[in-house]
Amino acid sequence: MENLIRFGEKFFDELEIAVYRSRDVSASVELNEISMASTRSGALTIIRGIKDKRLGLAIVDSDEPEKVKEAIEQAAKMAKLNSPDEKWVSLPGPGKYREKPKPNYELKEASPDALVDMLVKGVKLAREKDENLVVAGGEGGVSWEERRILNSHGIDVSQEGGAAFFFLEFVGRKGSVVTPGIFDFDARRDLNLDVEGVVERAAQKVQWAYNVLPSKNEEVPLILGPWAIAGLFSYALLPAFSGERLVKETTPLAGKVGEKIASDVITLYDDPFHPLSLEPVIADGEGVPTRKNVLIENGTFKGFVWDNYWAKVYGTESTGNGKRDTKSGGISIGFHSVVIENGKRPLEDIISEIDRGYLVDGLQGAHSSNPDNGNFAVTANPAFLIEDGEVKGASVFLIAGNVYELLQQASEVTKEQTIMPFMATMITPHIKFEGVKIAGK
Amino acid sequence: MENLIRFGEKFFDELEIAVYRSRDVSASVELNEISMASTRSGALTIIRGIKDKRLGLAIVDSDEPEKVKEAIEQAAKMAKLNSPDEKWVSLPGPGKYREKPKPNYELKEASPDALVDMLVKGVKLAREKDENLVVAGGEGGVSWEERRILNSHGIDVSQEGGAAFFFLEFVGRKGSVVTPGIFDFDARRDLNLDVEGVVERAAQKVQWAYNVLPSKNEEVPLILGPWAIAGLFSYALLPAFSGERLVKETTPLAGKVGEKIASDVITLYDDPFHPLSLEPVIADGEGVPTRKNVLIENGTFKGFVWDNYWAKVYGTESTGNGKRDTKSGGISIGFHSVVIENGKRPLEDIISEIDRGYLVDGLQGAHSSNPDNGNFAVTANPAFLIEDGEVKGASVFLIAGNVYELLQQASEVTKEQTIMPFMATMITPHIKFEGVKIAGK
Repeated sequence: MENLIRFGEKFFDELEIAVYRSRDVSASVELNEISMASTRSGALTIIRGIKDKRLGLAIVDSDEPEKVKEAIEQAAKMAKLNSPDEKWVSLPGPGKYREKPKPNYELKEASPDALVDMLVKGVKLAREKDENLVVAGGEGGVSWEERRILNSHGIDVSQEGGAAFFFLEFVGRKGSVVTPGIFDFDARRDLNLDVEGVVERAAQKVQWAYNVLPSKNEEVPLILGPWAIAGLFSYALLPAFSGERLVKETTPLAGKVGEKIASDVITLYDDPFHPLSLEPVIADGEGVPTRKNVLIENGTFKGFVWDNYWAKVYGTESTGNGKRDTKSGGISIGFHSVVIENGKRPLEDIISEIDRGYLVDGLQGAHSSNPDNGNFAVTANPAFLIEDGEVKGASVFLIAGNVYELLQQASEVTKEQTIMPFMATMITPHIKFEGVKIAGK
Repeated sequence: MENLIRFGEKFFDELEIAVYRSRDVSASVELNEISMASTRSGALTIIRGIKDKRLGLAIVDSDEPEKVKEAIEQAAKMAKLNSPDEKWVSLPGPGKYREKPKPNYELKEASPDALVDMLVKGVKLAREKDENLVVAGGEGGVSWEERRILNSHGIDVSQEGGAAFFFLEFVGRKGSVVTPGIFDFDARRDLNLDVEGVVERAAQKVQWAYNVLPSKNEEVPLILGPWAIAGLFSYALLPAFSGERLVKETTPLAGKVGEKIASDVITLYDDPFHPLSLEPVIADGEGVPTRKNVLIENGTFKGFVWDNYWAKVYGTESTGNGKRDTKSGGISIGFHSVVIENGKRPLEDIISEIDRGYLVDGLQGAHSSNPDNGNFAVTANPAFLIEDGEVKGASVFLIAGNVYELLQQASEVTKEQTIMPFMATMITPHIKFEGVKIAGK
């Protein structure tokens, strides 16, 4: 690969070669039956070269030197056709990396069989627990990735590792009641996926959902669960921490570093090295060392995250948040493992103190939130009514609000923390919010 | 591959092996610059085997015999773990295929260079036409696929071919007006993509969009363009023709064969061999011969489409509409090339007769339509006000209605037919609908 960097320097002022080799095995369940097992693997090389501030970017699904050379020539032709990007400064230079955590090689060789067995076990446990329950869908997967990022300024960093995930979707039918799809998840860096826990939690929610209760317009405490938080924050909040948005003036957090934007209980950071993290990457998508970046500390906004390009445009340094999109080949600002710090008391203690309120498992429609101002309008479903310290049944209602107002209403976070392996990976407790206005449906 | 069928018969009562080899080249543009060129290729083998009515399905991204054997064993293990599907009858037997059209081998070897050149040309033409215009996005792509489907009942059918597509998205900025994203498309079975036409049509729409006009509640004639029709019909109408939905009682067309469900001007069929079709496949995803299936003839509903499984459950024959999802490996009922028959007069003649009405280019929110009853609620954007036979400017408005009521309001179809290469591939004229209720926004 170093030779290919030399080859590329004939065409470019500077260039980057990123190589990804991956292996993904997965198995799915549909309507109580295993529906598919698959094994896929591949290599991908992405060339990013700059000549006279003109960018060329080429992707080829191979790591053979001849194919990579072709891709370099492709990128060079493209750079010639493009206009200069006057904002371009340079690719990153080498940095000091943390020690790589030891990969779990068990995940490299994982077979779909192991996942099929887990799904079969999950279906069996679920049906034993509740014969009215259908495992509508679910999937187990193991991903393994080897990545190497080199550039002509001397970056050469490689890492390998993997993660496994598992989820099930249950639908319960009892009398005339058909519950909404009810999900639960596990994800980790080994194969000891918590099938029993997923079934236990999802089946409990199905039990609650059999008792359908009306909702009404009121102001009540809400406990948002990990899935609801991950959905809402991914769309309404996290984009606001992007330095690109600071430059483009599309974040409501501009000029607010040091200001209180949430209640004291909220501490939020991005940390690939968190113990629950699925990808403990020492370098981001362009080879910049990763680090823990605090975004909100006890309610106070601490700063933005950056990739190399936007950091240099703004005159600051990359925070190691350049994420590579292997589909477009491009780098954009993103997160590794967004962590919301947990609290001291378990969820059940918090529930037990609520006279009337809701435990919200899922929020629908979060994707149409507006990160420019934090406004959102979502449907809470499934959501569970809490009365006199106990869950009584399930309701559906609307919440229209602003994520920053909501953050000020946060009063407690649970001791339990859950990893949500979708969108931006998020490790989060349940969060209780006081006096949230809801609209009955 | 025949040997592999023999190998698989040791494990299964019947089995199917489907092999897909593909090569995809593409190039993208973002904000007037070429942003990416890529070349990807691969092979995929999907095993579907049945033992005692128990299904096993395995996917491996290889066509090497050893890997395929492993996948067969994988599928066999899975079948053992599954419960019998009492509805299962059998895989299809051999049928009589039409003659394969000659593939265009130019597409097999296509280089991203050709696509980069087209995009550069598109950007240049667009900027020459209107300096206030930004090419916000766009892509050119060429796909080549070689497929072979075999089963233990003697099916062995293979075919190869390719298609090319091209689209651009423009945004115009003039004074305080920023237009919505305005798209135009071309797709065909050769590389002579109509870059000039795409630019011409999209730039015309941008010109119209500079003049933003209010909308109001009224009943007016609407002309829906191909993109709007493809979006709305894909979600609100086409699923209703699925035989699976007939069996599951989730189509409003049950019991309506021979009934009038649209005005006389609407004739709609699925025909992979239409001259504009991108995939003139002689066999569907499970090797059943394809054919032209008429769905609506001069307003009269003619019948449902079927894959092998649901046809046998219902006691009829597959219509060659078993489409393979290469992600899940499964077969479901789908379409090859949905064609709406064209009319006699060009679009401009129809526009010239409208005193007040709209030409609707895009419909947002069509994906939340309900195919169980045809209800939809969409935002027309971009939409262009027609007054006194001329387009005067752009408006945004809402349409909430029912697709079957809309079909009865169709009064004319244009002579021009356009291929929409997204979702279900659709070849459609513009359609004029009379007296449609719209809500100003």
